[in-house]
Amino acid sequence: MDNGRILENIDIRIEENKIAEIGENLKGDEKIDCSGKIVMPGLVNTHTHAAMTFLRGFRDDLELNEWLREMWKVEARLTPEIVYVGSKLAIYEMLSTGTTAFIDMYFFPDETAKAAKELGIKAKLGPPILGLDANLDALKKEIITFAKNYERDELVKPFINVHSIYACPLEALDLSKNLSEELNLDIQIHVSETRKEVFDCKKKYGVFPVELLEKREFLSERVQMVHLGWITSWEIGLIRKRNAKVTHCPTSNMKLATAGFFPFKEMHDMGITIGIGTDGAASNNCLDMFREMKNAVLLQRNNYWNTDLKAYHVLQAATVNGAKIFGINSGKIAPGYLADLIIIDPYSPNLQPIRNDNLISNIVYSAIGTNVEITIVNGKIVYDSRNREQIERIREEIKQIGEKINEFIVQEH
Amino acid sequence: MDNGRILENIDIRIEENKIAEIGENLKGDEKIDCSGKIVMPGLVNTHTHAAMTFLRGFRDDLELNEWLREMWKVEARLTPEIVYVGSKLAIYEMLSTGTTAFIDMYFFPDETAKAAKELGIKAKLGPPILGLDANLDALKKEIITFAKNYERDELVKPFINVHSIYACPLEALDLSKNLSEELNLDIQIHVSETRKEVFDCKKKYGVFPVELLEKREFLSERVQMVHLGWITSWEIGLIRKRNAKVTHCPTSNMKLATAGFFPFKEMHDMGITIGIGTDGAASNNCLDMFREMKNAVLLQRNNYWNTDLKAYHVLQAATVNGAKIFGINSGKIAPGYLADLIIIDPYSPNLQPIRNDNLISNIVYSAIGTNVEITIVNGKIVYDSRNREQIERIREEIKQIGEKINEFIVQEH
Repeated sequence: MDNGRILENIDIRIEENKIAEIGENLKGDEKIDCSGKIVMPGLVNTHTHAAMTFLRGFRDDLELNEWLREMWKVEARLTPEIVYVGSKLAIYEMLSTGTTAFIDMYFFPDETAKAAKELGIKAKLGPPILGLDANLDALKKEIITFAKNYERDELVKPFINVHSIYACPLEALDLSKNLSEELNLDIQIHVSETRKEVFDCKKKYGVFPVELLEKREFLSERVQMVHLGWITSWEIGLIRKRNAKVTHCPTSNMKLATAGFFPFKEMHDMGITIGIGTDGAASNNCLDMFREMKNAVLLQRNNYWNTDLKAYHVLQAATVNGAKIFGINSGKIAPGYLADLIIIDPYSPNLQPIRNDNLISNIVYSAIGTNVEITIVNGKIVYDSRNREQIERIREEIKQIGEKINEFIVQEH
Repeated sequence: MDNGRILENIDIRIEENKIAEIGENLKGDEKIDCSGKIVMPGLVNTHTHAAMTFLRGFRDDLELNEWLREMWKVEARLTPEIVYVGSKLAIYEMLSTGTTAFIDMYFFPDETAKAAKELGIKAKLGPPILGLDANLDALKKEIITFAKNYERDELVKPFINVHSIYACPLEALDLSKNLSEELNLDIQIHVSETRKEVFDCKKKYGVFPVELLEKREFLSERVQMVHLGWITSWEIGLIRKRNAKVTHCPTSNMKLATAGFFPFKEMHDMGITIGIGTDGAASNNCLDMFREMKNAVLLQRNNYWNTDLKAYHVLQAATVNGAKIFGINSGKIAPGYLADLIIIDPYSPNLQPIRNDNLISNIVYSAIGTNVEITIVNGKIVYDSRNREQIERIREEIKQIGEKINEFIVQEH
């Protein structure tokens, strides 16, 4: 991950939660035998709604607005417990497919935090500001409390989730910006996902969404904008000027037929930090970042009629740039970086033949999450597919979670 | 697979190579315990170049024409052995990801036939007619011999592979059509994959590709056309009129940035039989039909800006309609159908929660090949992920195949 360089036959020494040293014949107390394996940085999913696994496949193929209405009906009676079990299910899926950190937006973030800490994954979380009639005073208190509670947490990083321009009052943008400065917190917002959203913004405010954010002095290096399927060239310029960060969710955009296109290569060439997200399980419907990397390339190539976007670009987005958006010194195998690593077994049919010259291609275009054998977060093994006891235990828990979610869903019908 | 109906808590009795009976408390000599599992028809990959796993990830991100030149350089020194081991690698990948039959186009089809018979997968194969200077007399003999050799084979179904309009003389089309009638063989051909191909055909022959095939009296219910990314509405009419069959390869089309679009919903609504193919590992780069089903939906939704194409449409394409294109009575769980079945363990995080109302969604949008536990072809278990001995043996063989391929590839550099 250092400019795509591949090192062979080396040891990685981990000390506490960091990579201490890389070299030959290193010594240590414990050893993970990686001979014949691929070690790479863990993947960072920069946009998801983890708990929404409880809505996986729910009324899936309805027309978009009808589908949203059906989902909202179920969400209206959401409980903390469903968020907790839904988050656990998502985290099991992420850890077992090589994701070591995720950026989330969903209700009851304390429940997702609890799940993340139990299972050992990094999560960037915060109470969502959502609704044109949202109670901003109450939300302000909630955000302050949440930020304080996780201030020094090893795994949970608090931040501000303001849903979007169209689903929040403008004052929510101002509140987010002020809190961000006061409390030193990042902000995440959905921007320009659909054509309608852009059209409505232009009609209501006279400017395009990113222009509106610029006008409200909302944009900064703390801001992460998600989707950006419908933006103008001068809006890209504003993102660059303010050093804001962006996230692409290719599968969700395709599945919901939002059309438009995320200008990946243009933004990349301008030096904008791009991450990749799966979005929630309700719109993807899986949380496998390997599939997401491939789909990012496929979608760009389809929409641009060229092959300018390469495997390495999305691998960077899903690792080192994702880590930058999360706000951790991770995503690279280099001394001083956090030991968020995954180990892949290359002797799976979909990864052969393998050589240094096709390794990155195989990882991006052919690997799937289940090729991951071991997932390490902060130097600790949090998932090990060879540990049959752990796998059996997870399987049993997943079964119970599935039953609990189904009971909850079925009440409705 | 009977109009999407899902049966619960039933037994499937297999006799020889067929499904004999479906019902409760059936008796038999041997039993595969499927309680708590999903049993569905095996997937049919209707277009691939199986042996091309040997080029997986090879010079992947070059510009298209440069990439083709690099590949052809290696293919020029192709050996039967590389086709044999490359086919085996592909078949291991297919069987372990739920594919029970595939339709292939590649050199040395006897080697692929050997691999298919050894590993127990169904393969539709035939010597390819390729090159504007192809020796048609020699190829005719080859095709006749091949067809005779596999005339009554349980697994290998011979047919005619004529590459395309642009890479063959028109006489190759006539030869294919005549042989098809004489020997009762199906035909596969690439048609209208790229804009350039259509442009060149119009310039050279004055008509669009499918029109040219109609003019040569080439079209019939024996013909399977692959890609069709650039066709007109009246060409769709001709396909319907002649009852020709079609195959969509969404991932390959996206990855090679061929643009255009395959009119899936229009053809489906007209009653044209549509299959789904992965294309070869050089352009995909994996052979997982679950990923391919999802990408078929994603691409349609992106290109058409609507959600008209549903999960069930592509599931039909990948099972019962794929089987029709292959030419076997398979792809449905019903008495009299061939026992080409796969068993999926639903207690994987990406498949939960699961209920009858989201089962098809989960299969198409979230499942991956590795969720398949057991693959059955003609009533025989040919892959069993729970059989640790078999898995270890396959892993060892894959390792050796990888090494053999790398030796071959590296000679070049």
